[in-house]
Amino acid sequence: MPPSVPDRQRTLGSLLRLPYQALQQRVYATLAQRGFEDLRIAHSVVFRHIEPTGSRVTALAEGAGMTKQSMAYLVDALVASGYLKIVPDPADGRAKLAMLSARGKNVMRALIELSAQFEADLAKSLGETKLLQLRKLLEEVSDSLGASLGQSDD
Amino acid sequence: MPPSVPDRQRTLGSLLRLPYQALQQRVYATLAQRGFEDLRIAHSVVFRHIEPTGSRVTALAEGAGMTKQSMAYLVDALVASGYLKIVPDPADGRAKLAMLSARGKNVMRALIELSAQFEADLAKSLGETKLLQLRKLLEEVSDSLGASLGQSDD
Repeated sequence: MPPSVPDRQRTLGSLLRLPYQALQQRVYATLAQRGFEDLRIAHSVVFRHIEPTGSRVTALAEGAGMTKQSMAYLVDALVASGYLKIVPDPADGRAKLAMLSARGKNVMRALIELSAQFEADLAKSLGETKLLQLRKLLEEVSDSLGASLGQSDD
Repeated sequence: MPPSVPDRQRTLGSLLRLPYQALQQRVYATLAQRGFEDLRIAHSVVFRHIEPTGSRVTALAEGAGMTKQSMAYLVDALVASGYLKIVPDPADGRAKLAMLSARGKNVMRALIELSAQFEADLAKSLGETKLLQLRKLLEEVSDSLGASLGQSDD
């Protein structure tokens, strides 16, 4: 018997991943309906890591745990579709920063709103009490996995 | 004020994602120590979706919600590094299937073992009772998000 795929069992990993994927799918489907149909889930790492004052591609790559090359590919696509602009780094004139354009900021606002909406919908279907329990347990998990998972890394 | 990045708040999304990322990081770091240092977290979608009897690249891409081109890139890399082999599809001689090589099957076994190890470690730090509560709540979330998230899609 070949080993079965971990995901077909309900491992803790898949139990964490499936709701997160559902959230992403719903959010990006709604973004498409709102006129942002050129955004893909793969772009979410950029929105997750970009600083309001702009970020270097190397910093985005490190934050996302990706190669610089893969991140540059995503950033280039988002510049081409008008979600990011490239500006000189005020701290180092030779360096460049990727920064959200006005359109990119609209996406960021929508991402926050739609993520909160997903959570509110889940509170309805699951019940407030259980959602709070879930949040509390997940916070304990994050804490017990160590501070390295905290703010700076992600 | 520019909008802040969703992830810097503890949204439900980030609470689900952070432990999952920690799991992936730990598993792939251990794989590297075991001699699979050419595997990257990006490859995990292939191991997650590949069938024991082999899968077409289009099926892998659909399962992972990726473009066929992006999936072909991952599959090519895993063929080059000896984790996958390409065989003719017995159902259609003109079509090809990607299938785990002996080395790929060793990785699959390690993935299952290391994922279970992560969960066992978490049971120690969090406590059995809380881990069971967490599993139960996550299963309810998955169920309430609908059958579309279940087996076939992922």
